[in-house]
Amino acid sequence: MKGLVYNGPGKIDYKDVPMPIIEKPTDALVKIIKTTICGTDLGILHGKTPTCKPGTTLGHEGVGVIEEVGESVRNFKKGDHVIISCITSDGTCEYCKKQMYAHCEDGGWILGHLINGTQAEYVRIPHADNSLHPIPKGADEEALVMLSDILPTGHEIGVLNGRVKPGDTIAIIGAGPIGMSALLTAQFYSPAKIYMVDLDENRLKLAKKWGATDTINSGTEDAIKKILSETADGVDVAIEAVGAPATFDICQQIVRPGGHVANIGVHGKSVDLKIQDLWIKNITITMGLVNTNTTPMLLKTVTSGKIQPEKLITHRFKLDDIIHAYEVFGNAAEEKALKIILTN
Amino acid sequence: MKGLVYNGPGKIDYKDVPMPIIEKPTDALVKIIKTTICGTDLGILHGKTPTCKPGTTLGHEGVGVIEEVGESVRNFKKGDHVIISCITSDGTCEYCKKQMYAHCEDGGWILGHLINGTQAEYVRIPHADNSLHPIPKGADEEALVMLSDILPTGHEIGVLNGRVKPGDTIAIIGAGPIGMSALLTAQFYSPAKIYMVDLDENRLKLAKKWGATDTINSGTEDAIKKILSETADGVDVAIEAVGAPATFDICQQIVRPGGHVANIGVHGKSVDLKIQDLWIKNITITMGLVNTNTTPMLLKTVTSGKIQPEKLITHRFKLDDIIHAYEVFGNAAEEKALKIILTN
Repeated sequence: MKGLVYNGPGKIDYKDVPMPIIEKPTDALVKIIKTTICGTDLGILHGKTPTCKPGTTLGHEGVGVIEEVGESVRNFKKGDHVIISCITSDGTCEYCKKQMYAHCEDGGWILGHLINGTQAEYVRIPHADNSLHPIPKGADEEALVMLSDILPTGHEIGVLNGRVKPGDTIAIIGAGPIGMSALLTAQFYSPAKIYMVDLDENRLKLAKKWGATDTINSGTEDAIKKILSETADGVDVAIEAVGAPATFDICQQIVRPGGHVANIGVHGKSVDLKIQDLWIKNITITMGLVNTNTTPMLLKTVTSGKIQPEKLITHRFKLDDIIHAYEVFGNAAEEKALKIILTN
Repeated sequence: MKGLVYNGPGKIDYKDVPMPIIEKPTDALVKIIKTTICGTDLGILHGKTPTCKPGTTLGHEGVGVIEEVGESVRNFKKGDHVIISCITSDGTCEYCKKQMYAHCEDGGWILGHLINGTQAEYVRIPHADNSLHPIPKGADEEALVMLSDILPTGHEIGVLNGRVKPGDTIAIIGAGPIGMSALLTAQFYSPAKIYMVDLDENRLKLAKKWGATDTINSGTEDAIKKILSETADGVDVAIEAVGAPATFDICQQIVRPGGHVANIGVHGKSVDLKIQDLWIKNITITMGLVNTNTTPMLLKTVTSGKIQPEKLITHRFKLDDIIHAYEVFGNAAEEKALKIILTN
């Protein structure tokens, strides 16, 4: 079969790789129907994730059909259509019992990172009973690819950690796929005002269409000044969806007393926490990797039409064209790309 | 009457000051029975609080007896014994309605900061109905001085923000009066293990006596290494009770996935937040000024004997000796001082 293999910083190949097999009784073998590319995959490609070794097939998102299950898998059988969660979890360790699947002692984010991933024709999913979600008949499978990672990430690490509630004024810094996922899921909780901040006019326009009440192009306007001048004393919730010191700084400067900074971004270096100003403000700062514990809930919001994550899909390719798809996704601003669907 | 007046960095005088009067119908005039000195007062003395203007009478803690009330005060009358909260609050603004009294739009921490404080024979308390607490008959009034500030601060900003719960492993960095208050009040929630970290052997000995299960002298041992080697993956809750980059750093390095860093310390400069390591750990970091919303609850724990905050009192002076008391408190380690009671 074919798979997209990381061959060290800057190098990927789409090539023949060994077909995965059932290694443990809790494994499932899944034939990929659709997969996608994540910013994290670009991070690996750019050498930012040394824990991912050359030779690994990338990808941690996708929907597929069960090809074979290990003998102790109870919830799935050959032919079932499934969402593959980016987080693998055994469901029984101390962290899993707290629904902190991201920190599963025999899992976490391993797909397309420590083990071969979903950008291939087939993928082995460990602890299948807890790491896959059944797809209801008739559901839009493209939309459900967004449930592997970005929608639960925006929801859990942005919206829930930020404790967005009715009437709140919130700001989302970064209008990429993750920021957009926070935008879509924040609206479950009826905030009064949603600022979206980005450098890209196209993304800001889309954000406005999808529910942002106010957009700020931080390349041409001072987002901090504008938000502080328009709100009494800042925002209730500031969601960081980039992963850079400058965007974290916007968040810490616009949060009001009693407010929340919810960091989603993956950071490569430390940030300067202005605790000399913040210590007195009774704020919380949260950060973390998605647990995907809200995926079943989000699935219901998608199948019922409450939200339409498929609108994040801007490009579609065959899986065979994945090298080209990486190029397009790597020039996301120019290509006006958000999420790219790859069909096997 | 006499009062302890701040006269600019490094300068305090105990001298004749005008007797306060009722200025607004919501004011009460309180005759001080007992007051104390806080680390924050030393901060003002050392010029760290430019918002406190020369000429201000210091102090934001104490118990007293009502001398006179304004015409709209309903809950207190002349002769009532009261705890003075360090936080003044009108009880009606947006923040007060969320019990965020620290951010009251007509109050907050103003006593001995923006208006004259409690290190005097008399003090004017604005919004008396919401800023004073009645002392039950027969209560130990010295113990209740600890309820003005340090006990609710340790409890709310350390223990409650840190979400200490039964079975937790927690670490308190700093065994001064605030750290000790966190130690005493953390035990309400039955943590399994309490590390206390400080440079002072005397304070560590007291901490052990008062409920710490483990003490670490960070002057002679590497607290981070020791805690990480003794716990599976760090502590559930790390409480910062100093206000320095080094102690904040200990906290961020010992917190386990899913854990909480509760900052109590007042910081004078920014800290380096190691978000490149922490973003994936699903932690919360909290910080804030005490709201004193748990003072009525804490009062019941003191009058019922559940905790004995009077053991934090190491020295007693007459109010007239307050200049000497400042000297003693300024050399707290050498003098083995925690809290100093000044009696009017």
